[in-house]
Order: sequence, then structure tokens, then C-alpha cells
Amino acid sequence: MNSYLSDSQVPRGFSFNAVHCGLKRAKLDLGLVVSETPASAAALFTTNQVVAAPVLISRENLRKSKGRMRAVIVNSANANCCTEKDGRPAARDTAAALAKQIGMDPSEVVVCSTGVIGGEFRVEKILAAVPALVKSRGSDAVTFTQFARAIMTTDTRPKWAAEKCRIGGKQVRVLGCAKGSGMIHPNMATMLSFLVTDAAISPALLDRALRYIAGSTFNSITVDGDSSTNDTVAILANGQSGAPEIVTEGAAYKTFSAVLEKVCASLAYAIVEDGEGAQRVIEIEVRGAPSDEAARQIGQTIATSPLVKTAFAGADPNWGRILAAAGRSGVKFDYERVDVTLAGILVCKRGREHKFSERVASRKMQAKHVSVVIDLASGKGKARIWTCDMTQEYVHINASYRT
Amino acid sequence: MNSYLSDSQVPRGFSFNAVHCGLKRAKLDLGLVVSETPASAAALFTTNQVVAAPVLISRENLRKSKGRMRAVIVNSANANCCTEKDGRPAARDTAAALAKQIGMDPSEVVVCSTGVIGGEFRVEKILAAVPALVKSRGSDAVTFTQFARAIMTTDTRPKWAAEKCRIGGKQVRVLGCAKGSGMIHPNMATMLSFLVTDAAISPALLDRALRYIAGSTFNSITVDGDSSTNDTVAILANGQSGAPEIVTEGAAYKTFSAVLEKVCASLAYAIVEDGEGAQRVIEIEVRGAPSDEAARQIGQTIATSPLVKTAFAGADPNWGRILAAAGRSGVKFDYERVDVTLAGILVCKRGREHKFSERVASRKMQAKHVSVVIDLASGKGKARIWTCDMTQEYVHINASYRT
Repeated sequence: MNSYLSDSQVPRGFSFNAVHCGLKRAKLDLGLVVSETPASAAALFTTNQVVAAPVLISRENLRKSKGRMRAVIVNSANANCCTEKDGRPAARDTAAALAKQIGMDPSEVVVCSTGVIGGEFRVEKILAAVPALVKSRGSDAVTFTQFARAIMTTDTRPKWAAEKCRIGGKQVRVLGCAKGSGMIHPNMATMLSFLVTDAAISPALLDRALRYIAGSTFNSITVDGDSSTNDTVAILANGQSGAPEIVTEGAAYKTFSAVLEKVCASLAYAIVEDGEGAQRVIEIEVRGAPSDEAARQIGQTIATSPLVKTAFAGADPNWGRILAAAGRSGVKFDYERVDVTLAGILVCKRGREHKFSERVASRKMQAKHVSVVIDLASGKGKARIWTCDMTQEYVHINASYRT
Repeated sequence: MNSYLSDSQVPRGFSFNAVHCGLKRAKLDLGLVVSETPASAAALFTTNQVVAAPVLISRENLRKSKGRMRAVIVNSANANCCTEKDGRPAARDTAAALAKQIGMDPSEVVVCSTGVIGGEFRVEKILAAVPALVKSRGSDAVTFTQFARAIMTTDTRPKWAAEKCRIGGKQVRVLGCAKGSGMIHPNMATMLSFLVTDAAISPALLDRALRYIAGSTFNSITVDGDSSTNDTVAILANGQSGAPEIVTEGAAYKTFSAVLEKVCASLAYAIVEDGEGAQRVIEIEVRGAPSDEAARQIGQTIATSPLVKTAFAGADPNWGRILAAAGRSGVKFDYERVDVTLAGILVCKRGREHKFSERVASRKMQAKHVSVVIDLASGKGKARIWTCDMTQEYVHINASYRT
């Protein structure tokens, strides 16, 4: 996933930076992405009823700028949500300080925060760091990976992905990074992810591509079923590749969408792989459901079941828990038609146990990637959800997050 | 909760027993309740789409007998669900064997199983044990508590509760027991519970009382959000107290309902208290919601959030997670009206952090019972949900349940 990133994979016309501004004790805690020229922008935000101040301001900016934006500024450590004082002035001031320093309109800035909800949001530390953040920015791969580090909270590693394609004879690059390892659940974008590309594409089509792709990537993963108040996926497309602008859903749009989907899928998978305390990724495939929506609902119920997730932590082929979770998903089905395949082994046929070696199944379940296929034999609906196992380490991390 | 149970608290005209029939390695694994005379019966069963064979048979028997039943037979260790062979003949044979031995109709028997889903259901061991089970039964408190032990799986202790009241000048007793510490979620009855009373009441009113009471007791608890394939709550009322029969929803019905509710609430609380790996019970009270249903939905989302439950394991007053869970419950509300009180301390006022001592709050959160009050200030809807904290021990238990 996070292979070596070379400078040639970085889209043209972007710069990045990351500094320690003092919100965290010592680590990078403030990151910046700038397009050196105006760019098309699209973003997806949390659907949680409790919304952090920066999400409110970024949503407002995206509307004001009509999808033409140039910069993203992100702090970690504090979410600027439900803080003692109203967090909106802090988010607005951050955008304004950055805009002034670069020479653009504040509405061209996406502001993001991630970290603890509540507490004091020390915006003065961010504002004091903005000049240096802007001044020392760079356009190389190393600076981008520093940015990917600055947005981390409980993540154990930075996560990025890059792809290329050719449009109109020109090389187009898509590069993205993401943070998130807990409070992850499919509900719009369920973490932070920032994507940059030198493709030229209208804001409307960029928005369409991002929304569509999010469904099968960022919205098809879960770590603990909890969605956050700050979730944001944002993309900037500045056209600096020199490729012709994508203005219809033709071949170029499809080519671009395909590489964007690859990047988003890589990042989504990386988030689950780095799930808090996770030992392995579980790929849940639901087939033969009455509809795609029903398949998704079953897949998500299985993917968030603590009993299923702990069984995977113990490499226990306890498929009864998988079937029981499907049964409480709210979708009606005849369990006497259901087949379950676990780590490639048929364990349940038409709702009855199918003789298998528990020892062999358990050994196969110790892999880094384990697949589960549930076939309801009741229609054509299907869905694929990625989740991770739930370990004692997950509890340890979350029982002591702030202490 | 489980205080000493005296013989005088045991309803008249019932007998009980428990034996080791060989499904578990050494512990009691088969239990029996018999009313020596015909009794009114009511029962609630799982709403899971995957239904164990004994639930199907018991539901059929309740219908056939028109709510006049006399016995309950329960095995632990295996759930008789999704077993290799069809489990229905095994459940039917069990009812028939018991009925024959006692001299009643098989439709007068409630059959229950609890334990692992799948595997082989060794009904021959149950059938072989039935004669001894019937023969050596007793009517005292000790035998009842042995029954309560026989239905345990991952429970660390048997759970029972008893109450008395006077109806028509006669003393009426209600006694119940329950099992369940994982796979617990409000969805009808989410564990096994068996209640006996010497009140005289029509099957229709008994059913009404049980359904109503389950809403605020068994259906208002959660351990891990998982509901099982075997969940059953059953009550037998044999009228042996000599009290006049309850045939209307008058004063006697209210008196009886009140004590039944006390018993059910005690048992529900005991299940949460004994939740797998639990250190403490968390009482979540949602007030000021648009409706009771909305309050319930918010309460249950908070109560099943792994992030909330792990924060409680660490006695971390991380109220942001509580608010974020409420925000993703699907209920629309204005978070800038929300107050949150944690362990008696106001921590969030109108959606903003209210200054408090984290040290003091954390100390109060180390109690065996911690309350959370979320006031939405948006209506009159309210709900109370009991859940427990999620500890590393929960994961340990469930990662190694069968190994």
C-alpha cells in the first residue's frame, strides 16, 4: 500500500507542508496543501448530527467559492468540536490567516480538524504557525508524506496512494492520503482524506466522481461503527497536467474515475488495515440479496458485530455469529437458503453446518486478509464491506486514549 | 440482586431440577421447571431472522396449547441452531419425552437451548437424562437456583430475583431467573429468562403484562448489540396462591404487573452487571427527545458504541464520544441545545464543554454504577437503557469462546 512515493507521482502545481505548532506534545500537528493555481474542488462531509466547526466553515466555503478552491489546512490533536467557546471563529480565522499569507480569498480554503472532541481549541498556536507553514512548503514526495503524518491521531502509520493515467496524450496524476483508525464507519466519508490531481475537470463532474466512488470505498469500510463529527474527504484538481478538461462523462471521465477509485480504495483498505488494534482485514461479501441496499445492510451488521469481530481476533471459525448478525440486520431472508464460505471454506450450506476442519479453518483465519462470503440465494443484490478484527488492543487504545 | 433465596419465596405448586446430561464437560447443562397443575403461559421469542429449532417448536406449542402450558426444559452448551441435521425433530422429541414422563401433552412444554450455534446437537444425551430429571425434582429454593445454574453459558453467576404481593388477601409470589452475558441486545427478549408465579391470571392478560414489561426491562439492555437466535422469555402462572384470578386490567392486574416488573428489571440489570468482562453498569437516560422512540434510538446507539463503552472501561470522561454517538443515531436534533451529565457532573451545556474536573469525574466513573443523562431539550420523549463497559476481558472471552 504505502510503497515508496517518488516525486514523479506528485501531481504538478501543488505544494505541501507540515509543522509542529504545539497542539500535540512533539509530533507534526498542522498540515497544508496548496494548489499554486485555481483548482476545481469537491468534498464530502460527515452526516453526523453533531458537526465540528471546521466542517461548517468548509461546507460554507465550498458553496461560496462555487467549487473553485486552492488550499487545505488541517490540524490534529483537537477536533474543534463542542469546545468551550464557539469554534466557528477559530476555523474562520484559520482560513483567513492562510488566505492572507498566500494571497487568495478565504473561501478558497478547506479547514479541517481531527482529534479529541471538547476541551480547549488553542487556535492561537495555529495562527502563529501559518506564516512558517506557508513559507517553507515544498512540492516533492517527502513533503507530501510529512503532510500525511501531520493529520494522524491514533494511526500507527501515514497512509497514501498514487495512480497515473493518460488523458489526451498527457500524463495525469492522482495522489491521496488519509487518516483514521478508530471512529470509522460508512457514513459519507468517515475519516479525513485529501486528494490532489493535476487533471482538469469541472467542479460538477469532480463532485459526481467523488460521490460515486466514495460509495464503494470510504463508505464501505468500518472499524468500530462509530462515525465522527469531523469526517471530510476533499479533492483539488488543478489541471496542471496540461490534459484537456473533462467536461462530459465520456471516455476521459471514465479513465480519470478509474484511477481515482483505485486511490480511494487503496486508502480505504489502508484505514481498515491500520484499524485500532487490528491484526487482519476481513472482507465481507454479501451475494444473492434481495437488493444491493439489503446486501449492504447485512454486510454492515456483520462488519460491526463485536461477536464476529472478536471471533476473528481469535481466528475462531464461529460462523454461527456471522449468520446471527445477518439475522438481526433488519433484512428479511430465509436462512435455510444461506451458504457461508469462510476463508475459502464452505462452513454452512443452506443454513446448516457443513462439515469442515476447524483446525484448517482457524489456520487460514490467521492470515492478514480473510474473506467471508454470505450467499442468500434470494436475489441479485451484492455488497463488499471491509472491516477488521476487534482485539484486546482495541479496547486498550480506546480506554486510555486521553490518559 | 442475587440475595439469599428462601423457600417461602418460591411460588406454590412448582418444582425444578437440574442435571449434568453430558453436553458440557462437567457442569449442569439441563434444567427443568414444572407446574404441578395446569398454568397460564406467555412467552416472547427472538426477532432474529435466524431462529433456532426450539424457538420454532416452543412458539408452535404455545399456539397449540392456547397459552396453557406446564413445563420448561432447557439445555445449555449447544443452541440447536443451524446444526448439521434439522434440529426440529430433536426439539420435538425432547418435548415428547418430557410430556410422557410427566403425563401431559407435548404442546404443554416450552423447549429451549442455548450455547454454540452449529455443530452437532446430541439430543440422545438429553433424552437419556429426562427420566432422572423428572424423578428427582424438588420445590425448594435450592433446586430453583440449581436450575438457574444449568442455563448458564458465559455467565459468571446464576441470576435470580423474587418478589411478593397480596392479591385478594392472598400472598402471591413471582420468581424468575435469567441467563445471558454476551449476544445481548434489546430486541424482544435478548437472553433466556424463565418466570414462575402462583398468581392466577388469564393467558391473554399474562401475555399483555409480559410484553409491556419487557419493553422497559429486557428490551432496554444491551451488552454487545448482538441478538441471538434462541432468545426466549417465558412465564408460567399456576394460580396455586389461591388468589382470585386476574381477568381485567384492574387493581389486581396493576399490583401483579408491578411485582413482575420489579423481578424483570432486577434480572435485566443482573444480566448487564454480569456482561462479559464488565466492570460497571452504565445507565443511559435520554430526556427531552422528540419522542420516546427517538430517545430509545439515541440511547441504544450510545449504549452500543464501542468507543463509549471502552471509554467507560478506562473511566475516561470522554463525553464527546457520547455526543458523537447520539449524532449518528439517525435522530435529527440540534446539538447546540444538548446537555450531558456524566456521573452526576454537568460536562456539556448546550453542545459546548462545561468546565469540570476530569480527575473528579474519572474517580466517580470508577463506581459499579455510572449514570449518563443526555437532555436534548427538544421534546418530552425519554428512555432509559442499561449497558456495561467494554473491557479487554470482553475481547478475551469472545476471541476464545470455543477454544
